[in-house]
Amino acid sequence: MIQQDPLETWQAVTRIRQTAPVVHSITNYVVMNNTANALLALGASPVMAHAEEEMADMVGIASALVINIGTLSREWVKAMFKAAERASERGLPIILDPVGAGATPYRTETARSLMNAFRPSILRGNASEIMAVCGELTCTKGVDSTEASHDALAAARVIRETWGSAVCISGATDYIVGEQTYEVANGHPMMTRVTGLGCTASALCGAFAAVGQDPARAAAQAMTVMGVAGEMAAAGAEGPGTLQLRFLDALYRLTEADLAQHLR
Amino acid sequence: MIQQDPLETWQAVTRIRQTAPVVHSITNYVVMNNTANALLALGASPVMAHAEEEMADMVGIASALVINIGTLSREWVKAMFKAAERASERGLPIILDPVGAGATPYRTETARSLMNAFRPSILRGNASEIMAVCGELTCTKGVDSTEASHDALAAARVIRETWGSAVCISGATDYIVGEQTYEVANGHPMMTRVTGLGCTASALCGAFAAVGQDPARAAAQAMTVMGVAGEMAAAGAEGPGTLQLRFLDALYRLTEADLAQHLR
Amino acid sequence: MIQQDPLETWQAVTRIRQTAPVVHSITNYVVMNNTANALLALGASPVMAHAEEEMADMVGIASALVINIGTLSREWVKAMFKAAERASERGLPIILDPVGAGATPYRTETARSLMNAFRPSILRGNASEIMAVCGELTCTKGVDSTEASHDALAAARVIRETWGSAVCISGATDYIVGEQTYEVANGHPMMTRVTGLGCTASALCGAFAAVGQDPARAAAQAMTVMGVAGEMAAAGAEGPGTLQLRFLDALYRLTEADLAQHLR
Repeated sequence: MIQQDPLETWQAVTRIRQTAPVVHSITNYVVMNNTANALLALGASPVMAHAEEEMADMVGIASALVINIGTLSREWVKAMFKAAERASERGLPIILDPVGAGATPYRTETARSLMNAFRPSILRGNASEIMAVCGELTCTKGVDSTEASHDALAAARVIRETWGSAVCISGATDYIVGEQTYEVANGHPMMTRVTGLGCTASALCGAFAAVGQDPARAAAQAMTVMGVAGEMAAAGAEGPGTLQLRFLDALYRLTEADLAQHLR
Repeated sequence: MIQQDPLETWQAVTRIRQTAPVVHSITNYVVMNNTANALLALGASPVMAHAEEEMADMVGIASALVINIGTLSREWVKAMFKAAERASERGLPIILDPVGAGATPYRTETARSLMNAFRPSILRGNASEIMAVCGELTCTKGVDSTEASHDALAAARVIRETWGSAVCISGATDYIVGEQTYEVANGHPMMTRVTGLGCTASALCGAFAAVGQDPARAAAQAMTVMGVAGEMAAAGAEGPGTLQLRFLDALYRLTEADLAQHLR
Repeated sequence: MIQQDPLETWQAVTRIRQTAPVVHSITNYVVMNNTANALLALGASPVMAHAEEEMADMVGIASALVINIGTLSREWVKAMFKAAERASERGLPIILDPVGAGATPYRTETARSLMNAFRPSILRGNASEIMAVCGELTCTKGVDSTEASHDALAAARVIRETWGSAVCISGATDYIVGEQTYEVANGHPMMTRVTGLGCTASALCGAFAAVGQDPARAAAQAMTVMGVAGEMAAAGAEGPGTLQLRFLDALYRLTEADLAQHLR
């Protein structure tokens, strides 16, 4: 396993701050606000739109596309396909967050059909979601399951072989399976008590993929920045409420020294 | 009227923290994030989904169903019915929050048709909403009206006789009409300046109903925890912005001593 | 250019706090929660509803209508037209926020068709959005562009002549073109790193228009209060996360002395 190089991660953060890449997110209602704020705090330019009528145009001005299936509906799935088609044509990185895959067949099938059709650059989910996309697991407890496992890593390798995607398994330690396998041990347990930080992680993957070449490395950088900002936020937070805001502050204020100090 | 027993309420909180019941919410766009965060901070597992295609499956892994009509549409009403059907089959507690009932006929009729079809375990709203569901009142000022009254209590009793539901009337003092009538005098006026704390209260009713037997008692426990956390949050808050986050922190950190100290 | 009179702005704030006007917003998913909270913190009564079935009824109890095209769909556009029809009948102020106009033809055309059909009291957007509505500009970088310019002021004057609307161009300095032209130099750069503060500004325009006679003056008052609350929030904020909450606190606690002290 490869540890993150703090300098390289810092250079990627700097590229995001300097170029403010437009990250188009089709994401769930629950987390839209936090996700947009996290992208803004990091220095990227969030766009959220889901009407079929404007998908091609909106993806036309984006540097990355993030698709999150947290709150699905027929219309939105159509928009996801339209957006991913245009992103594929333009060669943009596509990040898929298969929220709740395994919890219902509708989610699992939507996630798998997006994988089949578009072979996203990055698939990011928790262990049970990754296993569900792989097809090894058909049931999960809700959408906040976090246990990682050897099974999840095996599933990630199958997904990589099948669809070519870099696969990020979020958990206490994050694993990213790509050309190389990365391990990110940053973060704080209280982060699991804030809704949508996983979705935020996927959005940040979009920002890093927009300014980088290698999807797995971009995902590892995103997870590192998530984890470090989470640790900075948790220090002194009195609970998940204040953590949530301090997390945005930390993304905004993140320095090279913060990265060097927190990287494990 | 019965006061809450702090020990019993504390035991219910502990059961939620230990079992992390899945609370499936079909709620409005405005409050989804706060509601999910409040459930997570308390120790429950929020799930938010509204596609008809996955309603039966998603309710199949839940321990309670919360339906909130804050931002209605034809499609969502269909999903609410699908979800409630499955919850009824499985014998799950159903909590209905008739947001804005009385403000428009569409809301009043949707709330009443859900009452007729599913006889929810708990109906939670402010005085004007409860009276509108009862049919005694046909107009309200917006969706944040809070005055309680003898009329509302009378309406609650009619609702209980008609549909068998426990009825929680939120206000400066909350009244819960069930087999017994509970009175909860906790809370802070600044809470009315944060959107969706009523919706959060309904979601917490779902968590407490998931781990308890008696719906009215579960609602009283939820309102107690809401009120105590609100008081803890208001102490030192500089306004409704910081109160909102400190409220999540308070839910997360709530102890038996906090309950005993604040219960009136 | 006219500077704001702090006493007059303060009197408008007081009228909002005393009468709690119902501001009906059809706005985007990303900002609904913040917008509702900002209206509540200021003292207004937010209502958010988008179902065609209840548009006429809901607008019937409102004192202003705010339409924000941030996350469009066919159904929602229909609801916007229904709501605006009823608001026109009732003589209510209509505020249009053309989020992302210029970014896609769908947005530009929707914004222009709303202008043509209803001649809103106030159009509020950033420079590129205002120019797109005018028809001088057909492309923008995302939805958070903020540069003002002589071109935008010219566009505002064309819009005012064509549709009679007061036009508010948000930026480091806000310009409001109406019977008179106002200039508001309050605010803080960190505000651009919080999603939806522009949308919040439009919502506050609704509250001030509900209690005032002259739309341009109402818009100038709203932008003044936004900017002053933003400055109060930024003082001591560690980043955009805490700024966001402190902004709500500042709206809630705003005094006449705060206005007098910060007005430039």
